[in-house]
Amino acid sequence: MTSASPRHLISIANLSSAELSSLVSRAISHKRAIKANVYPPKCGLGLAGKAVPLIFSKRSTRTRISSEAAVNYLGGHPMFLGKDDIQLGVNETLYDSARVISSMTSCIIARVGPHSDILGLAESSSVPIINALCDTYHPLQAITDIMTIKENFGETKGLKLAWVGDANNVLHDLAIACAKSGIDVSAATPKEYPVSPIIIQQIKEAAALSGSTLELTTDPLIAVKNADIVVTDTWISMGEESQKALKMKQFAGYQITNEMMQSGGAKPDWKFMHCLPRHPEEVSDEVFYSNRSLVFPEAENRLYAAIAALEGFVVNKGQLL
Amino acid sequence: MTSASPRHLISIANLSSAELSSLVSRAISHKRAIKANVYPPKCGLGLAGKAVPLIFSKRSTRTRISSEAAVNYLGGHPMFLGKDDIQLGVNETLYDSARVISSMTSCIIARVGPHSDILGLAESSSVPIINALCDTYHPLQAITDIMTIKENFGETKGLKLAWVGDANNVLHDLAIACAKSGIDVSAATPKEYPVSPIIIQQIKEAAALSGSTLELTTDPLIAVKNADIVVTDTWISMGEESQKALKMKQFAGYQITNEMMQSGGAKPDWKFMHCLPRHPEEVSDEVFYSNRSLVFPEAENRLYAAIAALEGFVVNKGQLL
Amino acid sequence: MTSASPRHLISIANLSSAELSSLVSRAISHKRAIKANVYPPKCGLGLAGKAVPLIFSKRSTRTRISSEAAVNYLGGHPMFLGKDDIQLGVNETLYDSARVISSMTSCIIARVGPHSDILGLAESSSVPIINALCDTYHPLQAITDIMTIKENFGETKGLKLAWVGDANNVLHDLAIACAKSGIDVSAATPKEYPVSPIIIQQIKEAAALSGSTLELTTDPLIAVKNADIVVTDTWISMGEESQKALKMKQFAGYQITNEMMQSGGAKPDWKFMHCLPRHPEEVSDEVFYSNRSLVFPEAENRLYAAIAALEGFVVNKGQLL
Repeated sequence: MTSASPRHLISIANLSSAELSSLVSRAISHKRAIKANVYPPKCGLGLAGKAVPLIFSKRSTRTRISSEAAVNYLGGHPMFLGKDDIQLGVNETLYDSARVISSMTSCIIARVGPHSDILGLAESSSVPIINALCDTYHPLQAITDIMTIKENFGETKGLKLAWVGDANNVLHDLAIACAKSGIDVSAATPKEYPVSPIIIQQIKEAAALSGSTLELTTDPLIAVKNADIVVTDTWISMGEESQKALKMKQFAGYQITNEMMQSGGAKPDWKFMHCLPRHPEEVSDEVFYSNRSLVFPEAENRLYAAIAALEGFVVNKGQLL
Repeated sequence: MTSASPRHLISIANLSSAELSSLVSRAISHKRAIKANVYPPKCGLGLAGKAVPLIFSKRSTRTRISSEAAVNYLGGHPMFLGKDDIQLGVNETLYDSARVISSMTSCIIARVGPHSDILGLAESSSVPIINALCDTYHPLQAITDIMTIKENFGETKGLKLAWVGDANNVLHDLAIACAKSGIDVSAATPKEYPVSPIIIQQIKEAAALSGSTLELTTDPLIAVKNADIVVTDTWISMGEESQKALKMKQFAGYQITNEMMQSGGAKPDWKFMHCLPRHPEEVSDEVFYSNRSLVFPEAENRLYAAIAALEGFVVNKGQLL
Repeated sequence: MTSASPRHLISIANLSSAELSSLVSRAISHKRAIKANVYPPKCGLGLAGKAVPLIFSKRSTRTRISSEAAVNYLGGHPMFLGKDDIQLGVNETLYDSARVISSMTSCIIARVGPHSDILGLAESSSVPIINALCDTYHPLQAITDIMTIKENFGETKGLKLAWVGDANNVLHDLAIACAKSGIDVSAATPKEYPVSPIIIQQIKEAAALSGSTLELTTDPLIAVKNADIVVTDTWISMGEESQKALKMKQFAGYQITNEMMQSGGAKPDWKFMHCLPRHPEEVSDEVFYSNRSLVFPEAENRLYAAIAALEGFVVNKGQLL
């Protein structure tokens, strides 16, 4: 409700290395407080009396629950608006919707299809937009993942993360976040799914500042060599089910198994991450449900990352440091 | 949860002129407080611990967001129930539903089709019913519009409002509200869509008390003569899309443009209002996005009008003065 | 968020007689406090800052509203997840979903189809599961019904309750709850719908402890003999509408009327209960809307039973005594 344009959370690319690190630290701090049953939060109930719409064009259990719970934790009222409630750009312009909705609320958490919808919301909204997934970026997941890595390895600098999977939104922000955190990245994606040049440039710019490296390959065994962490994600997104047979062929050899990790020469104590939901073709049960798997703490950490993001972008108006 | 029948907000016709004015003043006062970040509200958290269902038979972005945010602002829990959650009169009688729902909640905000559903809820409910749109009335929008007019013109008495559009629920309560506020009304509606005699009588009764006038015409140029404010609304409601070609013909000449307003002889400083969502056929971009347009503050004011209505009908149990 | 397995509310069969009685007493106590406008609740806002998902595979007005209002009353944020938001076991395993959702929330209120889904959630969740209806049990309704009986009769011991209707989930937990409360049960169900042996055993075990009796019959006139309370429920559940003609035949003679109750020899002051929604074939209007009918206080009591259950299983971690 101010005239100055607010700061939005669109991609990890828009954060400095120090800002990303601060968000991760705050997320860890919120986790500790919640585990210790500290309430109200030390940062106060900055959203008390305020409404925060969640505009979701696709359903998403983790994103929705973590976002709603985070808004509530800070005292606000999350208002879920699914595709049956509102369709951006349908029945009125995106501009009109964004101006109106933002005039009655304190933040908009948006899970959209095209990245241009996030940009359109950000241009027209008078309150911060939190990108809760678009086809290009997934910053809340990337903050979560750096948090999960930091919890498990203590430091991020010098680690190596291998991505074995699709060249998608999750990889984009995760690789940028790793580069900003001093983590080397090696990403194996099928030859049909190369990482886009714009994203490569964003990763490399961040890597140059931190001194980390980026390797791109189509061979999972190359990617996982010396890896501390291996990460994958779903190969077949919602709505793509008809392409399953084709995709299974393109992703042959991409299933993460203990054998594959050993063949590729991963570090002995390698860990597995996945943003869920998980399907068996992506990773074997023996990995997914093993002690190497960080998937359940990773999923839980979505809550603390969302709290940190709301605190930083809404309560503290984008002052992250 | 009391046995005495509560007071409901069904139409502006049920409010005295002083009560309408008081709701508008309180809405303006809540707006100032919220802009100044005053929280909790001066009127207290009168809905704390209480649930307020929103029973909506059609989706409605503005009505839903403003209602949910208003309930939350007063400390309550808004509970959105769409047509997939509950269908009034289906699977059990409207009477049974209203008795049961009202016994567990503190107010019911209902957006229905037929006006008879609002009357049915009001007859059976033990808590106040807030009419958030039916096919005959739209009192929250009318309170919002008088508020928006008052903010922009200081006084309402002696102004002239022109309506150029359909003879619908928005016009009904707006014209009654204008009549109660001393605002002359001239409404142009196509000959196929005359204002109903019952509504004309309600407007005229109110106009007689305030000394304002009502003019009905089919010619937009007559309606806008000397107008301070021109208002329109969508011509084609949800579900009527198949009638678009026919309606476009019936509403030929009804698009509000600078040229039309000049030809008709509107006041030099005329303002434009529209309850949104807006489609281009109703008003030109040059008007809609100009300084003459009050549409975005008008939309935002829905929030403050909803707060004032909840405060008056629920927290203060219908004592509006 | 603790590693010890939490206590869940799956069926009345899992409660001791004293625990059931304590839940009923607390529900009555909450009702009195709410009627007296006591707020915050004497038991405190034990769910403040906490999110409670309602995972509902079918819509349910009473269960949803009472559950949401109860969570809100204790300070928590109810998060409604319908079948369009989440489908258990679809797109990921029930185990994965339960682990993830429970890691970000404080309780899961689930309304599912198969009882195995409740058991699956309970096995995997780190927070209490409240069974808000499955195909086998409906504990919140049973607590509500014992509460309603106690409010009206003062004591439960020595009463006789007649069930005239389907052998369903509502009967199961109600009969178990009656047996634990010293209430004799006589259940008339059509010969096509006998009570399952497992449930009969659960009822009989409880009856043996309290000294109450269980009678099973296909004749409504036998069931209602000397009854203090007669209870029925819908014969045709959601999704079974195509079987209506067949069911009407099977349930011939099962409509509860004043004449039937007199013929059968019910006590002079017999009362009628029904968990709603009600259809005319199940009970005549003269009974349903008479002074004998407890259906509306019974429906309202769902709220207080839900508060008591959340207090007992979530705030007090399953310590019910």
